[in-house]
Amino acid sequence: MRPVAVLGIGQTKVEEQWEKSLRELAGDAILAAMQDAGVETADALYVGNMMSGSASHQQHLGSYIADWVGLRFAEAARVEAACSSGAAAFRSALIAVSSGEVDVAIAVGVEKMTDSPTEEITAQLATAADADWELDMGLSFVALNALAMRRYMEQYKWDKISFAPFSINSHANAVHNPYARFHEPITEEQFRKATMVAEPICIMDASPMGDGAAAAILVPAERVRSIPGRPRIRVIGSGAATDSIAIHGRRNPLWLRAAELSAKAAYAQAGITPRDIDLFELHDAFSIMAALSLEATGFAERGQAPRLALDGEIRPTGSIPICTLGGLKARGHPVGATGMYQIVEVTRQLRGEAGGSQVPDARIGMAQNIGGSGSNIIAHILQVD
Amino acid sequence: MRPVAVLGIGQTKVEEQWEKSLRELAGDAILAAMQDAGVETADALYVGNMMSGSASHQQHLGSYIADWVGLRFAEAARVEAACSSGAAAFRSALIAVSSGEVDVAIAVGVEKMTDSPTEEITAQLATAADADWELDMGLSFVALNALAMRRYMEQYKWDKISFAPFSINSHANAVHNPYARFHEPITEEQFRKATMVAEPICIMDASPMGDGAAAAILVPAERVRSIPGRPRIRVIGSGAATDSIAIHGRRNPLWLRAAELSAKAAYAQAGITPRDIDLFELHDAFSIMAALSLEATGFAERGQAPRLALDGEIRPTGSIPICTLGGLKARGHPVGATGMYQIVEVTRQLRGEAGGSQVPDARIGMAQNIGGSGSNIIAHILQVD
Repeated sequence: MRPVAVLGIGQTKVEEQWEKSLRELAGDAILAAMQDAGVETADALYVGNMMSGSASHQQHLGSYIADWVGLRFAEAARVEAACSSGAAAFRSALIAVSSGEVDVAIAVGVEKMTDSPTEEITAQLATAADADWELDMGLSFVALNALAMRRYMEQYKWDKISFAPFSINSHANAVHNPYARFHEPITEEQFRKATMVAEPICIMDASPMGDGAAAAILVPAERVRSIPGRPRIRVIGSGAATDSIAIHGRRNPLWLRAAELSAKAAYAQAGITPRDIDLFELHDAFSIMAALSLEATGFAERGQAPRLALDGEIRPTGSIPICTLGGLKARGHPVGATGMYQIVEVTRQLRGEAGGSQVPDARIGMAQNIGGSGSNIIAHILQVD
Repeated sequence: MRPVAVLGIGQTKVEEQWEKSLRELAGDAILAAMQDAGVETADALYVGNMMSGSASHQQHLGSYIADWVGLRFAEAARVEAACSSGAAAFRSALIAVSSGEVDVAIAVGVEKMTDSPTEEITAQLATAADADWELDMGLSFVALNALAMRRYMEQYKWDKISFAPFSINSHANAVHNPYARFHEPITEEQFRKATMVAEPICIMDASPMGDGAAAAILVPAERVRSIPGRPRIRVIGSGAATDSIAIHGRRNPLWLRAAELSAKAAYAQAGITPRDIDLFELHDAFSIMAALSLEATGFAERGQAPRLALDGEIRPTGSIPICTLGGLKARGHPVGATGMYQIVEVTRQLRGEAGGSQVPDARIGMAQNIGGSGSNIIAHILQVD
């Protein structure tokens, strides 16, 4: 396998983009990434997307988007792994380039959620869970996470307010990210008074949907050496793992085994330990998922992630900055695009281009994207030379 | 890139499988392939599927099916490229194994179409075309193909009955394939009298939908040497290409440029020419697609594919046997599974296990899977040592 680098990145703002079609959104991100990379074509396009078949009555996004961005005749396919579709597309592109089969690959994540009625999108999101054994019981996705959070609070003796720092950190970090959906910092008081969605998950624990797209250009690492004046961002580790699709199938519903396995695989490939990670774009779809992720990937002891957050260690100046440009909570969670937003954000941090959200001296960053309630988790580690 | 072999294959019958769920169908094919290969686990699962999100209210098939077949914790994702989803999943598995990132990969194609009302499935199939510029004009998929066939007949001066040999050949070959949907040979008289679907496409020009799954186990080729008494089937060529998603975007609507490009890439990788191919599992979703495929991949001159068929050259004893186990027309076309049925069928032929449909002395076989109306085409060439 040959080493691979991220040569260019592009993204759209996460918001209600009613005036843009699915292909325009994806196209805007891809063309921005191609311009950033200084490339005019590519051999392959991998599209991460979850729900365009129902939300936009359009499948076959590989051909659909390749055609739109002037890559007609290139290889193209869609990769779907529910909310981890973005990272799954990135991993496909990574493996294709590292194999030598493809020289220039584009990975894009795109999702258009706000054209459809919310109840339709809620039903679509639930198709990431087990249709026979979870959905037929009437469980929505937020309800599944609420059950996990309640059990966590009971087992490890935390109150609801101990989760507030996750949301406060994400919102504070999004203020300087022009692509984020929200730019308003929130206070503990606002968190305490927030509307309940599915007890104990309040609206400040839950990431918002949105429309958006983010893209990256991947090339063999040796190629980037010839571009002067730009730091080279290499992908030094990648790992993917699944778990039972239904939470009830797991020995311990509070342990994200797929997060543990995928992170360990990525650490081993990179030859590093969690201590070497300077920032971590994790999948805070709900506060409880941020906590479980930190534990499974080796940054906190079991049941102790809220302690890390309460101590300020997850902030940009802490020991493990997370959600440095807003995370899912404040940048927004256009599901199939989220994994690619994370890659774009880690790249911005490692290039030193994160502006007011810059993590000082960031050299190594990790992105972790979760599909379903922890049933498909993909980790990538990037390093600046 | 290291060489890759197909170690095992499995499939279900194509029919109305109302008593089996999506995961049971996929599981039956995967477990049969694992048993055939003599492996008890795998590192990665790639699922080709087009429409489970709407037809079965279940997305996230990577985790869903990995969990079901006992591959919990393995890497898994779904790959979608409309009707070429099966080949796209196979190509993902191939690249993953050849890259060295994965040692044992499973590719499975699965589709469940007959639980839903036909008009719903017709609407779903149409999401493979261009939603904005084809579907909004009221075109269904068969209508798009009817327009192409009519133009072909006009341009190259063929009558409708000249397409009969494609259908007659597929039905004759399916008789000995226990996994095929139809086992009834048809006559030219039956073709002539067949119900019209979308003129000039009659029901004998059109492949039937169905439920089914087919799977293959891919491993590094050097690993297979150690299994005595079994011929080794290597993947010696692979290519993928797209074209404009809407037919009206193409310079020549009767030339499958993506078929030409993907086949040429596969020929080059394999170091062979069309003359070396002993059998060709092509994508006869409609007779016109069989004709266009034979021309674009180098087996017939432009406008002359019906001649090849009328001369009997596409039969098992001809110069280029096609659809040797029934093709899409008579084996059936469970869309996202079709590409994997083709891989399974080529493997059966090269192993000499095709029974009454065996092509004599088959050494090299090609499979070609088409997504949309020619907008995504993937070719694979397999060889027995």
